[in-house]
Amino acid sequence: MVLVRQELGDVLRDFRLQKAMTLRQVASRASVALGYLSEVERGQKEASSEILASVAEALGTPVSVIMREVGDRLAVVEGISTVPDTLPDELVAEFDADLAVR
Amino acid sequence: MVLVRQELGDVLRDFRLQKAMTLRQVASRASVALGYLSEVERGQKEASSEILASVAEALGTPVSVIMREVGDRLAVVEGISTVPDTLPDELVAEFDADLAVR
Repeated sequence: MVLVRQELGDVLRDFRLQKAMTLRQVASRASVALGYLSEVERGQKEASSEILASVAEALGTPVSVIMREVGDRLAVVEGISTVPDTLPDELVAEFDADLAVR
Repeated sequence: MVLVRQELGDVLRDFRLQKAMTLRQVASRASVALGYLSEVERGQKEASSEILASVAEALGTPVSVIMREVGDRLAVVEGISTVPDTLPDELVAEFDADLAVR
């Protein structure tokens, strides 16, 4: 079962580390208990919408950016992410021609 | 304050209606109380990750699709969605020239 809180915890942690902030700093800014935030980051506690909004603000990151990142990571877990085709068209045509020959 | 549960409720309701399912059908398939699901759809209750996974399965919609939709709608609420520019470049140039004259 794919659990949103686990991906959400990872995303919150990654954004925090990107901003080089400590758990204590984010918890303090968001007026959230340190232990609670730590459990949220480890995917052990659900964050209410109000807490999530506070933490997002403390991180200086819009909630939408957090949720989109959660959605993207869940898509990978669910195996339905679309990997962008970065190969030049000519190369793809070459591969296809090669496959057709075999 | 932008609340995830309100957008999530709207998204779950919209996906359910798209599939022409009743609250009762989804609640039954997801083994969730009807009243609880109704409150989740109205943004009055937080859905735990387990409940969300069950409801997503009942709707036949991956959790990632639901969370991405939530993220997209939140971006609109937060005013940071990127609206694609559908105006032809010449028209944009015309507007800019017009503004410069005033």
